[in-house]
Amino acid sequence: MELLQNKIMQEGTVKAGGVLKVDGFLNHQMDIHLFNEMGKEFKRLFEGKEITKILTIEASGIGIACIVAQHFNVPVVFAKKAESKNLDGDMYMSEVHSYTKGKDYVIRVSKKFIGKEDKVLLIDDFLAKGKALIGLIDILEQAGATCVGAGIAIEKGFQKGGDELREKGYNIQSLAIVEEMEENYIVFRK
Amino acid sequence: MELLQNKIMQEGTVKAGGVLKVDGFLNHQMDIHLFNEMGKEFKRLFEGKEITKILTIEASGIGIACIVAQHFNVPVVFAKKAESKNLDGDMYMSEVHSYTKGKDYVIRVSKKFIGKEDKVLLIDDFLAKGKALIGLIDILEQAGATCVGAGIAIEKGFQKGGDELREKGYNIQSLAIVEEMEENYIVFRK
Repeated sequence: MELLQNKIMQEGTVKAGGVLKVDGFLNHQMDIHLFNEMGKEFKRLFEGKEITKILTIEASGIGIACIVAQHFNVPVVFAKKAESKNLDGDMYMSEVHSYTKGKDYVIRVSKKFIGKEDKVLLIDDFLAKGKALIGLIDILEQAGATCVGAGIAIEKGFQKGGDELREKGYNIQSLAIVEEMEENYIVFRK
Repeated sequence: MELLQNKIMQEGTVKAGGVLKVDGFLNHQMDIHLFNEMGKEFKRLFEGKEITKILTIEASGIGIACIVAQHFNVPVVFAKKAESKNLDGDMYMSEVHSYTKGKDYVIRVSKKFIGKEDKVLLIDDFLAKGKALIGLIDILEQAGATCVGAGIAIEKGFQKGGDELREKGYNIQSLAIVEEMEENYIVFRK
């Protein structure tokens, strides 16, 4: 998606350790006009698919998911992050490793809000090694729900999480896939 | 706001310890149609005020803030929550006490995204004792920005945080103010 790629080129900065900082428009300050254009593009990419719900993960997925949901006319559920896995029969839970934060955390979704009848589109701001997305897919499997696919704003193609999920048959649509990045350049996948 | 009050009456449940559970439409599963109607109502309530930015707090404020922002045509910034107050010159920080979680946490906002020229509308899902809102106002004061007011979905009127801020001159607009609640009834302020 050209608009998003241009925004990354103009306003994103590459930091040490493979960090792409896009806090000016994506995950701290949020450009709602851009999110709306992203929503239109996801609607085009998932055209004809039946979708009953959008599932995302706190915190920075929530804003994108809510704006995108207007284009599909469905509710949004966000997975909550918790430090520990205390027992709660009413929640689906999955453990996720965060490479950015160097620790494991647990994501939870109430069983009330995802069921086997649901056809779910996953939405998130970033996809790198794919651990958060795998956690969300795990929750859909526990619920017996259908994973229609995932809509991602920025994928770090060089970290392979997206391609591994595509090889397993998941429909992963990323609006900008960064193949290579250094302090002074960013290369996008065609 | 009648639509929100009806939704609370129909789908909200009152739990022990003064907890009003509205996770079916507000802060776990999110009803985007309802958020849009809330956006229209905030637009009406803050009609004629100049607003350059919306500030909210992760996680459950983000969805509402993004949908509401479409009615004001401004970007959203969300304050991030952190466990500790490590030094970072680039961030405004404020300490907030959470009665729900029984602990203090720090909220942060990058100095890049709020400046003295900004006229900021605060948005959040809940207002009880007002500690989160006071933290956000503190950040606006640090930035020298103007607080235009706060738009809240549900205020617990009996916990007084909203009225204390109104007495100090802040324009606090809550779409539903719960005056009293027990397991089998909820009374709203007129």
